[in-house]
Amino acid sequence: MSSQALLERVRRASRTLAELPASRCNTILLALADAIRTEAPDLLQANARDMAGMAESSPLYDRLLLTPARLEDIAAGITRIAHLPSPLGRILARRNLPNGLELTRISVPFGVIGIIYEARPNVTFDVFALCLKAGSACVLKGSSDARHSNQAIEKLIRRVLESQRITPDIIGLLPSTREATDELLRARGLVDLLIPRGSSQLINHVRDHATIPVIETGAGVCHAYFDAAGDLEKGRAIITNAKTRRVSVCNALDCLLMHRQRLGDLPELCAPLEAHRVRILADAPALSILTGHYPQELLQPADSSTYGTEFLSYSIAIRTVDTLSEALDHISRYSSGHSECIITEDPAAADRFSLLVDAACVYTNAPTSFTDGGQFGMGAEIGISTQKLHARGPMGLEEITTYKWLIRGNGQTRP
Amino acid sequence: MSSQALLERVRRASRTLAELPASRCNTILLALADAIRTEAPDLLQANARDMAGMAESSPLYDRLLLTPARLEDIAAGITRIAHLPSPLGRILARRNLPNGLELTRISVPFGVIGIIYEARPNVTFDVFALCLKAGSACVLKGSSDARHSNQAIEKLIRRVLESQRITPDIIGLLPSTREATDELLRARGLVDLLIPRGSSQLINHVRDHATIPVIETGAGVCHAYFDAAGDLEKGRAIITNAKTRRVSVCNALDCLLMHRQRLGDLPELCAPLEAHRVRILADAPALSILTGHYPQELLQPADSSTYGTEFLSYSIAIRTVDTLSEALDHISRYSSGHSECIITEDPAAADRFSLLVDAACVYTNAPTSFTDGGQFGMGAEIGISTQKLHARGPMGLEEITTYKWLIRGNGQTRP
Repeated sequence: MSSQALLERVRRASRTLAELPASRCNTILLALADAIRTEAPDLLQANARDMAGMAESSPLYDRLLLTPARLEDIAAGITRIAHLPSPLGRILARRNLPNGLELTRISVPFGVIGIIYEARPNVTFDVFALCLKAGSACVLKGSSDARHSNQAIEKLIRRVLESQRITPDIIGLLPSTREATDELLRARGLVDLLIPRGSSQLINHVRDHATIPVIETGAGVCHAYFDAAGDLEKGRAIITNAKTRRVSVCNALDCLLMHRQRLGDLPELCAPLEAHRVRILADAPALSILTGHYPQELLQPADSSTYGTEFLSYSIAIRTVDTLSEALDHISRYSSGHSECIITEDPAAADRFSLLVDAACVYTNAPTSFTDGGQFGMGAEIGISTQKLHARGPMGLEEITTYKWLIRGNGQTRP
Repeated sequence: MSSQALLERVRRASRTLAELPASRCNTILLALADAIRTEAPDLLQANARDMAGMAESSPLYDRLLLTPARLEDIAAGITRIAHLPSPLGRILARRNLPNGLELTRISVPFGVIGIIYEARPNVTFDVFALCLKAGSACVLKGSSDARHSNQAIEKLIRRVLESQRITPDIIGLLPSTREATDELLRARGLVDLLIPRGSSQLINHVRDHATIPVIETGAGVCHAYFDAAGDLEKGRAIITNAKTRRVSVCNALDCLLMHRQRLGDLPELCAPLEAHRVRILADAPALSILTGHYPQELLQPADSSTYGTEFLSYSIAIRTVDTLSEALDHISRYSSGHSECIITEDPAAADRFSLLVDAACVYTNAPTSFTDGGQFGMGAEIGISTQKLHARGPMGLEEITTYKWLIRGNGQTRP
């Protein structure tokens, strides 16, 4: 089937979801979780075909791999989604106009949500489950590395849908070709929202070539500012957690901004990083203080490319600032608008930082590690938006719905 | 100054707005309303230069023209905006997590909003006032037809800002060239949101070439479905109002879907259209019923281009349907997702229509004429969104804000 025909088929099928009661949606999700458990061997076999010949040292290895434990996690995640409240039919506003018209703004499904993603076959399950719960059909474009896994997952989902007497066409897996991507980017009238997940190269390509609405996700150049009134113990815990908990995630810390008055605390602040062999790229004042207190082979001077870099590795930039304002200027210039943090015991500094930093998540005395739909109490997330339109930060179920206005009258006319 | 330099200047200036108290914003708006009144002669003189040599019969004439009465309307509109509640700083969600983190989702400015529009110098004032109230700077790209008017308006706004000791760079008027448009469409990191207002040609160009987030506005292919259980009197009032109140607006009625059982009521339903010399393009069953009851010279058979057309003129399409489902299929195929209407006394039909029609505004027994920010109690609108991302339907002040998450901790870390 051509990509165009597949997109049209999903579009048609999406219309049936507007009438699907939340209870049936949840039944389907629970049946899917069961099927993942009972049909795990098939899924693992398909995954083995994708993994064949791949070296464990490949960065793809961990992202592609399915294991019995991971499938159990996926099934448990889908069960959790089934038990979350429905994001549909929420009354977002209600107004009765003087002329007697009754206005209701109500949350409704998008229709069809498209996802372009790399490796990670678990995304195929996650996206389907979140979209279904939010009343939308989904079109998935995975990468060729995960081809066999994704096909097996789609087959399993379609079988479950058929057994639940729902059209299986509410999920569509596009071929992993460049042509399919191009058709998806231009699927006007067929796909209502496109979310790219993956490398910044992928995201930039989607943003620059899509003619359908896109939510950008991912890129995180994250800062922590240690204020003149910062608490050393809290700072040490926050910086260590934000930098080393998981270095490959978008909310990992990239740059520490140190107030000049507190430079003397830098060796203590950075001491726990040594255990993780974190490389420090620092400006001259910070470098000078650290020398002799931190392994020399892990210290190097910052250069023109240091600031604004998303490291995704055990590296951190440090810059000295004279004032909160200078920290704000640095963040304004280099932040990707994802997650930013201040460490301070001064409420005025915290308020000013919170007011003036333009990012999805602004932390006071807590690490950027918490930027995550699960942590934020959303139950699950489909991605982390780094744009300001529609959704900002973690996107849960509510963030993948839209709304409409219902207007009830009795023959009123407008003068 | 190059367009790029102007965009950067507005970006820098926008940062000062994050700290502007709502009360000062309102003072500026009231001062602007006063200045419009006292400096009306200058504005009218500049407008006269744009109008010079233009025939009254030109479709541009009415859209370009400023008059003392229109300036007074504009000043009154800005005064109204000053008195609306601020859309900023609203607490949209608050959560206290088990680990003690306090999460607050709060409405904040976009930053810089760009508008591309045609003719209509009043838009220059409206957009500036709405953006300022929503805490954002604005970049305006008008058309060359309105060049002198727009320059005079920008000059006036800048003078008022200076007199209020606010940087005048929170407004930027781009030259009305193709190059300036292209730079605006690609102003990543400088413009946070772009709203095109004008012809569908303009909107399509923006959507297809922008690499910054866009909200589509405008195109409205609007339907009214007269159900088997429709009330004749209400239907007549609704159809007449929706079709003839103003034919050039996006929410004007384009197509009437008639339930076959009620075809006999068509002559009475359409009778008031005759006074407006409305041309009817009907399918065979409707045409046959109307013949002899409606002026023959205003009747013609529908053809393949009739349905899905936004007429913006005294024309209406009529199609006969056998069922509500058939009406829903027609709307699903041809609607632009703007405003749709059902005329029925059957609550089940109304509910089904409201549930299944995928449009920004779904009316029961009221005309699509009401789709308007002012009518919806928003106080003012910057446009009507026809997409599903971020804002749908009329966009008031709240719809041109975004949000951020503020997270307050006490040194918590993520396991």
